[in-house]
Amino acid sequence: MATTTLKGQPFDRQTMDSMLRRRMFYTPSFEIYGGVAGLYDYGPPGCALLTNIMDIWRKHFVLEEDMLEVDCPALTPEKVLKTSGHVDKFADWMCKDPKNGDIIRADHFVEEILESRLKGDKEARGVKVVDKEEDPKKKKKKVKGAIEAVKLDDAVVQEYEEILAKIDNYNGDELGALIKKYEMKNPATGVEPSPPVAFNLMFQTAIGPSGNLQGYLRPETAQGQFLNFAKLLDFNQQQMPFASASVGKSYRNEISPRAGLLRVREFLMAEIEHYVDPDGGKKHQRFEEVKDIELILLNRETQLSGKTTVEKVAIGKAVADGTVDNETLGYFLARIHLFLEKIGIDQSKIRFRQHMANEMAHYAADCWDAELQTSYGWVECVGCADRSAYDLTVHAKKTGAPLMVRERLAEPITIEEWQIDLDKKKFGPFFKKDGKTVEAAIEALPQDKREAFAQDLAADGKIIIDVEGVGNGKVEISKDLIVIERRTRTENTREFTPNVIEPSFGIGRILYSLIEHNYWTRGTDGGDEARGVLSFPPPVAPTKVLLVPLSSHESFKPLLKYMSLKLRSLGVSSRVDDSSASIGKRYSRNDELGTPLGITIDFQSVKDKTYTLRDRDSTKQVRADEETILKAIKALVEGEKKWADVEKELPAFEGQEVEAELPVKEK
Amino acid sequence: MATTTLKGQPFDRQTMDSMLRRRMFYTPSFEIYGGVAGLYDYGPPGCALLTNIMDIWRKHFVLEEDMLEVDCPALTPEKVLKTSGHVDKFADWMCKDPKNGDIIRADHFVEEILESRLKGDKEARGVKVVDKEEDPKKKKKKVKGAIEAVKLDDAVVQEYEEILAKIDNYNGDELGALIKKYEMKNPATGVEPSPPVAFNLMFQTAIGPSGNLQGYLRPETAQGQFLNFAKLLDFNQQQMPFASASVGKSYRNEISPRAGLLRVREFLMAEIEHYVDPDGGKKHQRFEEVKDIELILLNRETQLSGKTTVEKVAIGKAVADGTVDNETLGYFLARIHLFLEKIGIDQSKIRFRQHMANEMAHYAADCWDAELQTSYGWVECVGCADRSAYDLTVHAKKTGAPLMVRERLAEPITIEEWQIDLDKKKFGPFFKKDGKTVEAAIEALPQDKREAFAQDLAADGKIIIDVEGVGNGKVEISKDLIVIERRTRTENTREFTPNVIEPSFGIGRILYSLIEHNYWTRGTDGGDEARGVLSFPPPVAPTKVLLVPLSSHESFKPLLKYMSLKLRSLGVSSRVDDSSASIGKRYSRNDELGTPLGITIDFQSVKDKTYTLRDRDSTKQVRADEETILKAIKALVEGEKKWADVEKELPAFEGQEVEAELPVKEK
Repeated sequence: MATTTLKGQPFDRQTMDSMLRRRMFYTPSFEIYGGVAGLYDYGPPGCALLTNIMDIWRKHFVLEEDMLEVDCPALTPEKVLKTSGHVDKFADWMCKDPKNGDIIRADHFVEEILESRLKGDKEARGVKVVDKEEDPKKKKKKVKGAIEAVKLDDAVVQEYEEILAKIDNYNGDELGALIKKYEMKNPATGVEPSPPVAFNLMFQTAIGPSGNLQGYLRPETAQGQFLNFAKLLDFNQQQMPFASASVGKSYRNEISPRAGLLRVREFLMAEIEHYVDPDGGKKHQRFEEVKDIELILLNRETQLSGKTTVEKVAIGKAVADGTVDNETLGYFLARIHLFLEKIGIDQSKIRFRQHMANEMAHYAADCWDAELQTSYGWVECVGCADRSAYDLTVHAKKTGAPLMVRERLAEPITIEEWQIDLDKKKFGPFFKKDGKTVEAAIEALPQDKREAFAQDLAADGKIIIDVEGVGNGKVEISKDLIVIERRTRTENTREFTPNVIEPSFGIGRILYSLIEHNYWTRGTDGGDEARGVLSFPPPVAPTKVLLVPLSSHESFKPLLKYMSLKLRSLGVSSRVDDSSASIGKRYSRNDELGTPLGITIDFQSVKDKTYTLRDRDSTKQVRADEETILKAIKALVEGEKKWADVEKELPAFEGQEVEAELPVKEK
Repeated sequence: MATTTLKGQPFDRQTMDSMLRRRMFYTPSFEIYGGVAGLYDYGPPGCALLTNIMDIWRKHFVLEEDMLEVDCPALTPEKVLKTSGHVDKFADWMCKDPKNGDIIRADHFVEEILESRLKGDKEARGVKVVDKEEDPKKKKKKVKGAIEAVKLDDAVVQEYEEILAKIDNYNGDELGALIKKYEMKNPATGVEPSPPVAFNLMFQTAIGPSGNLQGYLRPETAQGQFLNFAKLLDFNQQQMPFASASVGKSYRNEISPRAGLLRVREFLMAEIEHYVDPDGGKKHQRFEEVKDIELILLNRETQLSGKTTVEKVAIGKAVADGTVDNETLGYFLARIHLFLEKIGIDQSKIRFRQHMANEMAHYAADCWDAELQTSYGWVECVGCADRSAYDLTVHAKKTGAPLMVRERLAEPITIEEWQIDLDKKKFGPFFKKDGKTVEAAIEALPQDKREAFAQDLAADGKIIIDVEGVGNGKVEISKDLIVIERRTRTENTREFTPNVIEPSFGIGRILYSLIEHNYWTRGTDGGDEARGVLSFPPPVAPTKVLLVPLSSHESFKPLLKYMSLKLRSLGVSSRVDDSSASIGKRYSRNDELGTPLGITIDFQSVKDKTYTLRDRDSTKQVRADEETILKAIKALVEGEKKWADVEKELPAFEGQEVEAELPVKEK
């Protein structure tokens, strides 16, 4: 599918990119020093867009549901990330070209070589080759060598296709074996890369003056939230369920960053950890409010069938029929959809894709990504995973901290179980220094083993249990030391480790998609170059109102200052453009910045305080007195009215648009 | 001076700290793993406070003056920080105790030992020793050994005092010499620490998979702004003056972090870089608006005289009499003062202290710190420096990027100067491979040298100039190769490197001071423990309104939900406390969080939709219908009205306060 702009025009990324750089939405960091791959600066309009997106995010999620926001450092000591699994597993496989020293991501390399060979095969068979959309999720680095039209055996084609289908599943040795087996050579040098080695994606540093405390920059904000679980539960007066949230920078030392803002080394994340009782089907109290919201859900089966488009389905139905695992997960998918819609993401370019079983972290129960369609393909922008009780469990086990919920039961419950009594007086003296170890091994016996041992004890008068580190690892205990009996016990409280549903937002990716979704170009009568427009909804637009005086005449200055102050007191951001460029030029500069409204101050304004209000998207204008204009602006910016409403209510003005459309000289 | 609370009570830091931890304003990071010194997490009320402070900051500075906000990565390549001087100079001197391995900051060590000896001397002389305020700026680590009452020679006392007066001026060798000379021993072990070595305070890391690109976490946000100067000037349509601004985390690997939020390793900074033409006295267009604002200005002379208190003076007068170097610097001092006042900093606890000449970076023209008084002493919270043209100049020189302003002159100017012509045809062949080097040396000659050489040439028919790297460094040029003449030339443009005025805010320190300045305790009739109150102004308060139902009766639930929605639609944050604790208890919990207003929902509310509105500070209550109550809340939260106004307008309610004041049982 070819990508089109908001107005259905063919999308030209290069033109848009050059506009974004020129208007300083973002720009490569440290550019005067040659830049660093994967690091970007946001300029003034980019920053304002970011601030507005985050403001809406906070209102939509944190305030709406009384989430407990925390702000934790990016600097993280190694032991935390060792427990979470990041030190051992947060890595990509990397090869080196022995000839030119190129560093190559092994999975990308195998993928590209095989795809290029398959393309060559198709060409040799006379099949027309259509370039696939570039997909940043797959992080491809274009292979430099040209495609050679070489026909492959049918069996080989099938082998290649099978490898590509499970490319995310291979470990380093397996990738190395594939490279050897299929004689894959770096097209740049013609030599085979070195065997893959694991490259951890975390930035490492030492904390404190001694250099002994190893640390990393966090790769996600989640861990800081988990570590505070007990304090947060306390803050929430022990009430479940609840959510914590965090907004902050995270870091990943990508092997080869690319695709602009989509794959960077430092990025803004917004993460929610919603803690829910694993028992009772993970219901959500407010699910009713969202159940009719329709989403495009690309589940596992659909993906395996090779289909990429599906009908929309109500989230209520999807949870009921088991497509989405539970209500809480479904609730957040719907809320994510509403958020994306609210900031101006094109509804027809959102889909939710379920992770394949092998794509998920081993502890995850289910995971859906909100993907947004861009000229780079479908981009994962929000992940929504059910992380189960994994993180809280491992941190609790490592530190001994009680990262769980103790709930008073409405009715006490009676539990029937196998209990063990030791004759402590005899037991200690008998096992001496090994006493504690043996006792711990006995305490740890699960119910089924206890039952079996009870039978052994009755039959043989002794049991033999495995105790690591004592003698040969087998310990005999006779019936005068131990009693195993089935008894009942009453419980007044219930302890459980909550499961975590985690919506995790990549803000830079959302911001880039938002820009693409709102970009289009306006032709000119004079045959000039088409002019870019960013049709952001007013609430996210970097600046809401442009103030333009008709000319640099002194009489306009007091009114400019007056209107700036008026707008500021209404909480509406505005900018003045009093440069000597024509009004049309000044408006089109601000169309590029996505400024939705413009006020023209002319000689009539000086006389009677009436103003012209211009709409960015239609370039239509209306004219009215100050109070009416300000009221209309406030209603438009707060989303209470659309331009069409304003146009109906206020008299049209056509005086300046003629001049505005004339080709004009630059200042 | 003893520190007191907002209500003049003796300030008890331990009680306040324990309340702040309990209510999760902030908490040591990674605490369940034993924590890491100098790293803190902000909990929900701390985060909300931070967000509100930053929101006001953006409105007060960025929006008010159309500053150009940029957001740059914390990861910074070494070459940038090499040029800025941080790689070589951003260090403290550090010693090691050879016995126990303690790491000691050398300047603090010398300072503490000498102060302790002076104290011992005073004691021996029978002078009463009063503990000085602890001053975190001086980063003292309390020496563990007890003070020994040993009398010193008068001459030695004078030597010690002189050393202490210039303690910030010594380099590592000098500090080492002092330690040796005065036989300073670590009280913990009785041995002399190792000679001081420089310890760079930046966190180091490697960027990219090769490990070849050395990087650091930025120690300030300023450099990212400077590198973008040319793009920002362009964005601003070449108009001067203008300012950029940045909000983000910065990092300093402190040797021994302490004093809670006041000296940490990762912290939020908000920095403004205001670019101004160095010619014309650095006037500011809006100085007139602030000139009557009165500040406490502790200038260099006053500090040298030993005085610490001075009268307030209008900033207009201070600039006029030269106390403050220029209008732009003065303008920002006043704006900083207004900002601090706006968020609720106690006006009587703000002072501006001028840096001593030896305290400033060598390039700075002037520097004033806004210091806030806390129980730790006066704390530097905002720096306001005139960084001159230093940063832009060094980066431009290193990279060749044009970090300057080219201004069209209103009237062309005529310049009379000594110009040099070389006879290129003869010059090249004569000097051969050295030609370019010699030519560059000639081009670089300043006007005074040119004049002198013109006279030499007339007198001797030749000149001898210094050219490094050519022959013996002396090059003879005869008059057939060179002409030096005084001529006039017309200039239409003027080029200059702007000077930078930099207000730099340590947000964590401001936040902590704000908490201290608004803390007090309310006694109880029943003799219970005094209850903490944080009297934040409504605009910064983490939550604006507490909603409390009289009891957990079902009939209150719809109204709670209704009022929550109502408040949210007004943009007012609220929280419900429907726990079973008494109303009084619930209110006092929220006084600790600084929630300024409370709405009680009782049976009367269910009947007629009237509500009680409670004021945190006075605990007074008024009662009115929904619309009136909401209007009052909006006016209070937006700072348009004070509680006194509301109390005058609406009927008082005294029904519940009796219960609220009763000692109550915890839930």
